[in-house]
Amino acid sequence: MTAVPGRAGSEAPAPIFAALGDPTRLRLVARLCEGGPQSITRLAAGSYFTRQAITKHLRVLEAAGLVRGFRHGRERRWEIRARRLDLARRHLDRISRQWTQRLEALKRDVEDMPEEP
Amino acid sequence: MTAVPGRAGSEAPAPIFAALGDPTRLRLVARLCEGGPQSITRLAAGSYFTRQAITKHLRVLEAAGLVRGFRHGRERRWEIRARRLDLARRHLDRISRQWTQRLEALKRDVEDMPEEP
Repeated sequence: MTAVPGRAGSEAPAPIFAALGDPTRLRLVARLCEGGPQSITRLAAGSYFTRQAITKHLRVLEAAGLVRGFRHGRERRWEIRARRLDLARRHLDRISRQWTQRLEALKRDVEDMPEEP
Repeated sequence: MTAVPGRAGSEAPAPIFAALGDPTRLRLVARLCEGGPQSITRLAAGSYFTRQAITKHLRVLEAAGLVRGFRHGRERRWEIRARRLDLARRHLDRISRQWTQRLEALKRDVEDMPEEP
């Protein structure tokens, strides 16, 4: 588990996964992806959560770089930071692909084996 | 943030992300994807971590359903559970796609706007 050069600091995907590792935060991210930038009032509508609880979760997502708040008229809205979400997505794609390639190589090796006489 | 039917229990991706939310665990998963099933001795080789530390991390990954241990001769090996990793990957793919589709719809709306006279 030595450090991997060029993947440290703000580019590391682990803190992104940690932030997504809570059902409410994961749901908030999904709603922002689906519904676009929106206020805490709208995010809280139809949920069991108070505005305070949602604010707390948004702060965790903000610290991981997954969302960002901005002013829209008199309102404060929150939006997804797609680049960070994409970093996590590409990381899972890469390691999944390595695993699949490994399986395929193994399958080829088995197929190339001479049959038992 | 109401509960989503059919996504609860063992199919929920949040515990998978929580388990991946640590640099050492994420690295262990990457090594198992890249190198295939292996022993703790091999996982510990060339790392700063003791076998005990690695065992602890593997237990967290096992609880999230991401790895599984099995006997191979006299040795105990660990392997990735691709179905669970894939569940997390597909979840990120789905929400990323929703966000991209939203952006594209927005772009079409802007392009369809009549130009200022």
